[in-house]
Formats: sequence, C-alpha cells, structure tokens
Amino acid sequence: MIFHCQQNEIVNAINTGIKAISTRTTMPILECFYLEASNDELKITSNNMELGIKTTIPARVEESGTVCLNAKMLSDIIHKLPDEMIRFNINDSFMAVISCGKIKMTIGGQSGDDYPLLTEIEREKCITISSLGLKDIIRQTIFSISDNETTKVLTGEHFEINGDELRVSACDTHRIAIRKMQLKESYDAVDVVIPGKSLIELNKILESDAEKNVNLFVTNNTVMFEMDNTIILSRLIEAKYLNINQMISNDFETKIVVNKKKLYDCLDRATLFARESERKPIIFNIYDERMALNMNSTIGTADDELDIEKEGKNLMIGFNPKFFIDVIRAIDDEEITIYMTNQKAPCYIRSNDGSYNYLVLPVQFNASV
Amino acid sequence: MIFHCQQNEIVNAINTGIKAISTRTTMPILECFYLEASNDELKITSNNMELGIKTTIPARVEESGTVCLNAKMLSDIIHKLPDEMIRFNINDSFMAVISCGKIKMTIGGQSGDDYPLLTEIEREKCITISSLGLKDIIRQTIFSISDNETTKVLTGEHFEINGDELRVSACDTHRIAIRKMQLKESYDAVDVVIPGKSLIELNKILESDAEKNVNLFVTNNTVMFEMDNTIILSRLIEAKYLNINQMISNDFETKIVVNKKKLYDCLDRATLFARESERKPIIFNIYDERMALNMNSTIGTADDELDIEKEGKNLMIGFNPKFFIDVIRAIDDEEITIYMTNQKAPCYIRSNDGSYNYLVLPVQFNASV
Repeated sequence: MIFHCQQNEIVNAINTGIKAISTRTTMPILECFYLEASNDELKITSNNMELGIKTTIPARVEESGTVCLNAKMLSDIIHKLPDEMIRFNINDSFMAVISCGKIKMTIGGQSGDDYPLLTEIEREKCITISSLGLKDIIRQTIFSISDNETTKVLTGEHFEINGDELRVSACDTHRIAIRKMQLKESYDAVDVVIPGKSLIELNKILESDAEKNVNLFVTNNTVMFEMDNTIILSRLIEAKYLNINQMISNDFETKIVVNKKKLYDCLDRATLFARESERKPIIFNIYDERMALNMNSTIGTADDELDIEKEGKNLMIGFNPKFFIDVIRAIDDEEITIYMTNQKAPCYIRSNDGSYNYLVLPVQFNASV
Repeated sequence: MIFHCQQNEIVNAINTGIKAISTRTTMPILECFYLEASNDELKITSNNMELGIKTTIPARVEESGTVCLNAKMLSDIIHKLPDEMIRFNINDSFMAVISCGKIKMTIGGQSGDDYPLLTEIEREKCITISSLGLKDIIRQTIFSISDNETTKVLTGEHFEINGDELRVSACDTHRIAIRKMQLKESYDAVDVVIPGKSLIELNKILESDAEKNVNLFVTNNTVMFEMDNTIILSRLIEAKYLNINQMISNDFETKIVVNKKKLYDCLDRATLFARESERKPIIFNIYDERMALNMNSTIGTADDELDIEKEGKNLMIGFNPKFFIDVIRAIDDEEITIYMTNQKAPCYIRSNDGSYNYLVLPVQFNASV
C-alpha cells in the first residue's frame, strides 16, 4: 500500500476523525484510524461503535490497500511534519513508513481486516439544515441532557421534524430545554433520539458557517450527517422520548423582564459561594420593579439587586444558580423574560416568538434565613 | 477597618501577590493575603516562607487596620466585580463586607496579628537590572536547575556579579546552563544562590519591558527585588555553589554549525518516540557536511538528515533529545554552534561572544543498533 497526500489535508481529516476515537476501550482496534487508499482517494475512518466518521481526501495512490494505524500516534506525527506531500508506504507486515523529504518516521500498524467498518445508510429522504443552525441548536440545548445512564433516553436529544420545523428537546430531572428552528423546505415527519455524546462531537466538527449545509439521513436505528468530504454516522437511542408537551404550561402569576448580562454577573458571583455539598439556592426576591438576589452559604454571603419590569404578584423563589447560568449562556437576546407561578412550580424562560422555552425547577429554601 | 480601592488596582496587586500563596501548607494563614490599610495606602502581602511579595496601591482609608483574607476567595471575588471603586468594611470579628454599587459580598477573615510579616532589608548597595534582561536570563537558564532536593544548592541558580557583569548559572547532574549579561554600571562583587522556585515566580511577575528597571538588594540570607509598587523578597540558599568553571572546557574535536529551527523540528519529532522508561537517545551521525539523526524505540523509528557546516572529525554521538530541546528554546540565534569531543565527553552549545554556554552530557548507546 503506497500513497501520497498533502499534509494539511490529512491534518484536517485527522482532526475531524479523532472525535470518534475511543480512548478507553476494550477493543484496541478502536484506538486506530482505518486507512483505505484507492482510486485517487484516501478514506480515513474512525468508529467508537456509537459514533463513526469517514473523511475522504485526494491522494496519489501507487498501490491500493487498507491498514489500521494508532490514531494518536498518526495524529502526532502528521501534525509535526511540514505542509508538503507526505508519502505512506505500508508493507505486508503493516510497518508504515511515513516520509516527507529527508524525514522518515516508521511505526507499526495492523491489518484492516478486523476493523468494524461503517455501514452507510441509504441516501433517500435527504433533510438539509444549515451548518451554523444545527451547531447553534445543539449548543443551546445540549447542557440539559441527563448524564444518568439508567434512564438512557434522557442522555440523548429529541429531534422532531414536522413540516418545515425542527424541534430539539433535552431534559433531565430538573430542567427542560426546547429550541425550534425553521427549515427551508418541508419534510416528512421525523421523531428520533440522538445520543448526547454523538451530538457533542458533531458540534465540534460542524462549521460556524450559515452558508454551508449539512444533509441528514435517518433510518430506524441510525442517523447520518453528510458535509463536504465527511460523513458522520450515529446510532440512535431506540426508545420513545418523554411527552414534554405535557410538562409545559403557559400559566404564570409573576412575569419579569431582566437584563441578561446583569443577571448573569449576579449569578456568576453567587456561585463563588455555592458548594456542591451544601446545595444552597440563590434566592430571587421579586418586589415591585426590583429583584433582590441573595446567596448564603458557609463560605460567605452574596447580595445584589437588579432593576426589572414586573407583571403580576411579588414572589420569593430559590434556584440552583448553575441551571440558570446554563440557560442564560444559551440565549443570545439582550433581555430575558422569566415566567413564575409560586415557590414550587416550574419557572420558564421563553421567547415571544416561540423559538425557545427553558424550564427550570425551583429549589426549596428556608425562608426564615 | 474601612477603605476604598479601584477594582483594577486590587486585581493587579492580587495577580502579583498570589504567586507567593501556598496551596499546600501546614500553616493555614499562609493561604491568606495580609491586608493593611493606612495613610491613603493599601498594602497586600503574601508569604510562603521562602518567597514574600508586598504590593502597595492607593486607597481611600476611612479607618486603618489589618486583616487576613483567604487569597483564592478574595481573588475570585475581586475578579468578578466591575472595574469601579470597591469598599471594604471589616468589623471587629473580621467579617469582611466587600461592596460595589448594589453588590455586597461577605466573607469571614481572621486577625492579622499572627501573620508572618516580611522583614524588608536595608536599601543599601542597590543593583539595577533591566526588567526584560532579568526575565530573559532566568528563562534562559532555569530549565537546568535540579529538582532533587537532596542536593539543595542545585535547586537554585548561582547569581554572580563581578564589575559590570552578571553571570547566572544552573546545573543538574546532566547539564549546565551559563548566561552572562552586561550591567549599566559596575558593582561590588555578589555571589549568591537564589531558590529556583522563587525565580520561577519572579519571572512570571517581571515585565517584558526593556525600559523598566528592577532594583536588587542582597544580604547574607535574603535577596529583595524592588519594582514600581512591588517588592519581592526571597530567602537565599546558604551554601557554596559548585565550581562550574572547573567543569567547562574549550577543547573540542568536532564543531558543527546547524540551523536552529530545523534541528528543533527534528528533535521534536524524535521525542514522539521517546519513552521515559526506555531512555532511548537520539543519535547524531556527523559526517562531512551532513548530520543524520536517528531515534529508535519500541514505539517507532525516526530518521532525518540536516545540512551542517563541520570542522574537525566525523562523530556518532547520542543525546537525550529533551535536554537539547531545552537548550534550543533558550537561544534566540538563527544558527547554533555545537562543540563535541567524543561519545562520552560533554558537548557544548556556546555563542562566539561568550553570552551563553550550555553543557549537555551525551548518552551511551549501542552503536550496533
């Protein structure tokens, strides 16, 4: 197996592919890239058995073949070579000589025959989403997935397409994040749960480019994202997602509008005094056109006051400041609107145009403190 | 104790002072800053019993006093406050209320009475060094200090002043770094050993500004660095330094001149295959106007070849690539000159003007490999 590639093209393919390389695995071959050279192309594949990535780059192939090379070692070597043509020569014992000018690096590889190849799915019913849009909608919801593997379905995100609307939802036991996005065309209904871990890696690969598109293909158990020279395959979580609509209410007794940046700074300071072991809430004391904020832990006390626009009743309510910070980071608006009912009922941060709706459960607190 | 300070001025003082805060200490008070407010000034002191730092900033003092506040907590709070005037109000039980506009943060402090204050040394015999020059000379030698506490004197750097020349030396069992620097004036002889840890922190604080000066004051057991509004005190290692001159030779049998960047890239790639446990050397094979480099470990093999200018005999010699990389990083010249004698004798990388001289011991290798 002999082929030549431009260094910067292999670097890009490696930087993408490494996102699906297992670091802790009982199958050592999953620590490798699978390289396939043929027909003026090099295909680089990685697969952690949940997420798989295949990137195709141009190559001058002298002798076709396949080989598995340790991903980290190959990445380190290629990154340290100059941006010139690189020659790969892999012999029958899978010794790989990687050379560039007078530089010659030799590492041992293994047969590609045992590698668990990706099974591409049929390219029918293509759904097109802007790369930036998909990247944003993942970032704006992914923090709400559960990390508790006992309820597997909550470790994923619910992707629903109805007509020309994509709705992405994530939820754990304390909060819900829902984002909607308009697609350019209408499609047949889609209702799948994509593993959060796959989306986190996909998000790193997606370009922040509104002009670029990603093509989505879905089957019963797999989703495939196709972009430029890369395809990304993820298993689906084959379970019915919760009926989130049942948990959402539009009723409220207190509605406030507050400057996002100022609220963020308050919460950020208050978290200095939040200790995981104490689970102390930050208390919002809403009265008239003001909101006093108080956090009181064994480390110290933080007090602050913000101007707000208020509608409805005065209210004193406690929250885990981290949950609120996560939501604020996901919102690009300058002001946010918060809907509350009482000390125990869910609180909603939602936009007027329905593009987002975040639910945060309040935390009980001892009002006498 | 009540005083007011500008946020950015306390931030700067804290960022400097935190370099002398102990994280692992049996004396909890060393995790604190000592704050002293009086006469329109706030003094912030930190002291890890080897290194001490005191910074003075302007303050509006309503009520003088002293207090100890946890350094990390104070730093976190101040960094998260807006750049405005900050009010400190510390009551008789050392509860500190730090406020800024409507923001109020309260933390517990402790009495300043038990704090091990710094003893400033007499400001006689002032030695003036440019801040950039001192920063450079530390960076260019500090990597050669020993981390083995059993030979305490080698964990420090030897600072010698003779006339208008400052010479700084560092050495462990495998290498020596010597740098010389011209001072603007002549001074009485100085011969001290400054702890490496103190110099590493000093280096972080020194400004990269050739126009700025640092004043040095030395006693038998202490060195004091004075700059702008900050003084830094370090204990000295009270021991005689090795006679390094005895170990240095100007004889050689092979002299080569090589492009620094190209040699660096070679060594950097070879280290990919260097494992601590194997201690495999990189072998320089010098013949005619070429140098072949080879590293051969259980991970892989790296080969390369560089053009050189050579004087003297051909030679095959092995080195720990890391030691060579450290030296190359400390040299700003485009080309370096390497003087060698045989496979076992020390190798020198030195400048023609005598401003630097680095010794690296070769590593034995099995030539048959």
